[in-house]
Amino acid sequence: MSDGSLERLRTRIAAQDRIVLDAVNERLRLVAELRRHKERQAIGFHDLEQERRLLERLVNDNDGPLSPDGVRALFEEILALVKRELGELG
Amino acid sequence: MSDGSLERLRTRIAAQDRIVLDAVNERLRLVAELRRHKERQAIGFHDLEQERRLLERLVNDNDGPLSPDGVRALFEEILALVKRELGELG
Repeated sequence: MSDGSLERLRTRIAAQDRIVLDAVNERLRLVAELRRHKERQAIGFHDLEQERRLLERLVNDNDGPLSPDGVRALFEEILALVKRELGELG
Repeated sequence: MSDGSLERLRTRIAAQDRIVLDAVNERLRLVAELRRHKERQAIGFHDLEQERRLLERLVNDNDGPLSPDGVRALFEEILALVKRELGELG
């Protein structure tokens, strides 16, 4: 494989990273919107049971090559990140 | 906002999660391919300088609302995840 081919692989990896970044930003916007509406309705924002279901659904939907543990680690980090970004502690 | 509207927000969040999952799976495939070619050419697989540049490019490209620290935390986790999934330790 030539350096050009390696460079093309790196470009494709960078494109996937950009997709992840845009999707996590959009997720953050949507969760902020969800939170505003829930606060208005005094519904509990953190629903651990809902987070558990979300993780299991993603594990079930996963076509791989990511392992089930990899899917859980990825989305546990994303859920924690969204809470940090929204100034949530719990 | 009705329960139906909350449910629609949750559906849109789930769609973003699916986009992230698919993109990280594709990233894992591409990095595995990159590694195979580099092994053949005996090029060092881990290039810390390249990872640093990758993180800085994503921070620069980020349109928000994710913070720069949030972008770094997200992709440090994804880089570590890909290494774990490919059986890399370092």
